[in-house]
Amino acid sequence: MKTARFEMTAAVTPKAERSVTGGHPWIYDTEITSLSGSREPGGLVDVIGPKGAYLGTGFYSPHSKIRIRLVSRNANDRFDRTFWSRRLRYALDYRRAVMGEDFRCCRLVFGEADFLPGLTVDRFGPLLSAQVLSVGMERIKGMIFEELMAQLEQSGERIDGIFERNDVAIRELEGLPQEKGWHLLPGREPPASAVTEIEENGVRYLVDVENGQKTGFFLDQKYNRLAVKQLARGRRVLDCFTHTGSFGLNAALGGAQHVTAVDVSESAIAMARENARRNGLDEKMDFVAADVFELLPKLAQEHAKYDFVILDPPAFTKSRRTVDAALRGYREINLRAMKLLPRGGYLATCSCSHFMEDGLFRRMLREAAADAGVQLRQVEARQQGPDHPILWNVPETDYLKFYIFQVV
Amino acid sequence: MKTARFEMTAAVTPKAERSVTGGHPWIYDTEITSLSGSREPGGLVDVIGPKGAYLGTGFYSPHSKIRIRLVSRNANDRFDRTFWSRRLRYALDYRRAVMGEDFRCCRLVFGEADFLPGLTVDRFGPLLSAQVLSVGMERIKGMIFEELMAQLEQSGERIDGIFERNDVAIRELEGLPQEKGWHLLPGREPPASAVTEIEENGVRYLVDVENGQKTGFFLDQKYNRLAVKQLARGRRVLDCFTHTGSFGLNAALGGAQHVTAVDVSESAIAMARENARRNGLDEKMDFVAADVFELLPKLAQEHAKYDFVILDPPAFTKSRRTVDAALRGYREINLRAMKLLPRGGYLATCSCSHFMEDGLFRRMLREAAADAGVQLRQVEARQQGPDHPILWNVPETDYLKFYIFQVV
Repeated sequence: MKTARFEMTAAVTPKAERSVTGGHPWIYDTEITSLSGSREPGGLVDVIGPKGAYLGTGFYSPHSKIRIRLVSRNANDRFDRTFWSRRLRYALDYRRAVMGEDFRCCRLVFGEADFLPGLTVDRFGPLLSAQVLSVGMERIKGMIFEELMAQLEQSGERIDGIFERNDVAIRELEGLPQEKGWHLLPGREPPASAVTEIEENGVRYLVDVENGQKTGFFLDQKYNRLAVKQLARGRRVLDCFTHTGSFGLNAALGGAQHVTAVDVSESAIAMARENARRNGLDEKMDFVAADVFELLPKLAQEHAKYDFVILDPPAFTKSRRTVDAALRGYREINLRAMKLLPRGGYLATCSCSHFMEDGLFRRMLREAAADAGVQLRQVEARQQGPDHPILWNVPETDYLKFYIFQVV
Repeated sequence: MKTARFEMTAAVTPKAERSVTGGHPWIYDTEITSLSGSREPGGLVDVIGPKGAYLGTGFYSPHSKIRIRLVSRNANDRFDRTFWSRRLRYALDYRRAVMGEDFRCCRLVFGEADFLPGLTVDRFGPLLSAQVLSVGMERIKGMIFEELMAQLEQSGERIDGIFERNDVAIRELEGLPQEKGWHLLPGREPPASAVTEIEENGVRYLVDVENGQKTGFFLDQKYNRLAVKQLARGRRVLDCFTHTGSFGLNAALGGAQHVTAVDVSESAIAMARENARRNGLDEKMDFVAADVFELLPKLAQEHAKYDFVILDPPAFTKSRRTVDAALRGYREINLRAMKLLPRGGYLATCSCSHFMEDGLFRRMLREAAADAGVQLRQVEARQQGPDHPILWNVPETDYLKFYIFQVV
């Protein structure tokens, strides 16, 4: 295959060829040995190995270190509406299969894991909240969103609008502006409100797709919250880094005796409190605006009586360089939680950072347990929900670690 | 602590001291440097380090390579009825917490993971099925079973009898005879029948605690079967190594279009067929007595149309020495299953061998996928159910690996 089928052709290094044939879909700037063609941002580029073998076709991104994101490895593919429509159908069929009734409220598209590089789409009932994170996807998003709406509506789902949450820094790595707003669909008015109520595990939340974190709500812990809900009956629960209260609310609805929900942000605490009221759970919950690192040792000194501690911190590291500092942070809070708990108490602990690999996270937990003088008895090890599938060839799609232990 | 509190005192090597203080509860024959006292099989032995530090107290087993199994690390513990009663209460309280309504039918005691070395107790409604696998536990089993019955009945559970399934070869390593039969409880008659009906995930089974495999039924895959059930709707399912049909029955009850259940054993197939009839699922299931290694390539040749394959083989390895051969076996069936499936089909695959460590199992799956020319998209990674908790300090308690993939 020597003839360029598309705007561009890129030849890559032997190392890149091995990586691509091994299954990874990214080619870095330093791996391209020659490039011919339009160099149009977001254009399609055929990738060939050092000896001219066709390796795949991808989106070209002139500003990013990830210079090419493969979209296909099949030389017969044409990247027309039919092609993208099929990709979207696979993504939706998969969610219908694995999410069942939770299809109403889940992640519909998870970027690389759905072979739709740089696209994230979350569904909150009638609203879709999307992030367009690659210049290639930006170029075709109008068609993609039209197809997505058409497929959902054909299968009887009501969708009122798509909100683009492109207000994220990584857009700039792709040479794209940060912005947010309703995606304008031909012949349709955007909905009047960006706020909708969802129900998850029986807990109701208001989701604001315009102003909430990321796409409006973290869907990836849905079934981990359910695991907490099922274990909470009769317990005194301390929910650390509660954000909008989700783990604590699940524990309270699951029959916890009492829940204390902690977050350093006053506005998060206000939201969590409002969510408790909305669910009629405010009488068994209290809310503390405090730094978890400072609060945990204080609670231990006061001999506070909790028998279920939940640690759901924000990503302490977003790059490989800061993993060591992050490890110290994780270790500190886990050690403190283990010390606070009585023998036989429960600990739910997680990390949502891809760079905090499972092996590292587990070693940290072992060390914390040894320091605390306790043994860990694993009730369950979980990851992100199945609407965020892990494509084994793309380690970046594997990010959430979630453990429940009994401390013995 | 220089005075022996119990029948025996054993001094151990520095390596054993490190292992024990690191959390592992076993001391091997070669690790004991001196032993004084009765040498009574199953007696209690204080373990001291090379410099005389008290490390713990355990069961002494003169015939086993695992010469001492620690039961406590607390020099103040007295090993009377109160002590064992507390251990049993912890075990039961834990199951009530993590199993909820499934407490009726679950593993109540999981040996070392419950700090009850060598004791396994499964509950099937009104019947308990136990294995006594250490000579120390054999010595006190009368008292242990009395306490267990008393605690269950005090909390309103009806228990008709305890069947001892001590017909296992590893008993001989402890110098114990292989045998099975009802455990005679003071003042009680054993029940008339060793067969009872259980319901799991909505599927009914007859469990024969006298003649079934191990304790009568494999409880550890309960929630993995549920995961299969939830994914099966509308699919054509091939359940390999079906044994008594459990994965296939769950798939059929979950709305599979059709289920083919395969096992090499004619008697297993007969049981699976009977279970299908019992659940009114026989019309959507068929049963094949065949060797899975031979059947899978044959099905591929015939272009058989399955879109969900389940591989639940027996442990291909029960020791570290045969791991390589086991790996080849796992690889063969996984490769064949991946080749049989259409793009977008689902694969549930597991290993119940402790020696097939997760890292090895994952590498095998990666290699099989590369050979089959497919990518693996992980829906879920699961382990044994929470009634079989994993004590991190005892790697032997970590044995079941269960993955669901979409083959893409």
